[in-house]
Amino acid sequence: MRYRRHVFVCTNARPVGGKPSCGARGGVEIAAALQRAVATAPDLVGAVAVTPCGCLGPCFDGPTLVTYPDGQWLAGVGEADVPAIAAWLAGGPLPDRLRYDWDDDDEPSG
Amino acid sequence: MRYRRHVFVCTNARPVGGKPSCGARGGVEIAAALQRAVATAPDLVGAVAVTPCGCLGPCFDGPTLVTYPDGQWLAGVGEADVPAIAAWLAGGPLPDRLRYDWDDDDEPSG
Repeated sequence: MRYRRHVFVCTNARPVGGKPSCGARGGVEIAAALQRAVATAPDLVGAVAVTPCGCLGPCFDGPTLVTYPDGQWLAGVGEADVPAIAAWLAGGPLPDRLRYDWDDDDEPSG
Repeated sequence: MRYRRHVFVCTNARPVGGKPSCGARGGVEIAAALQRAVATAPDLVGAVAVTPCGCLGPCFDGPTLVTYPDGQWLAGVGEADVPAIAAWLAGGPLPDRLRYDWDDDDEPSG
């Protein structure tokens, strides 16, 4: 396992007027802020990777991210949540408001 | 764990003349072909997700992908390898030529 934790942040952008998209709701800024937070935290740098990615599926609940190998999904993320996410990546608790549990009825979409 | 396997394929594009990039060497086409292969395989659809992503780090060895939760890295992937990768995702062996093991000297880059 190259990284202790690999975070993928949806930065997918959709045209205005259709389905919401993480990229249009702050995903790009969240990914950059999280990369910066990791790069400046001695206990995270080199151990945690943050990679922007395409559509993760729960578009209406975004901005969305997923971390592996644990497979934890986060949704409704804002840039203001980045310090709490970094603290969680360093071993702290995950705030309940950010936790996303897939409903079996949810249909992943591309 | 929402998916049995989540595949992230680097589609990062860099300007011509600099460091190579997966997006300029077929990453986009590989991601699309793998999405199609998964969508049309009854034992993979719904269980395996394929998401394009930004830079994964080993730019000189790309096109690159990583799968989770197992944390297996693949490099030097071509579109012609997609059937073999789909067969691996369905439980077959991973061809040695595609296996990528990080050297500790490798420096991840964004």
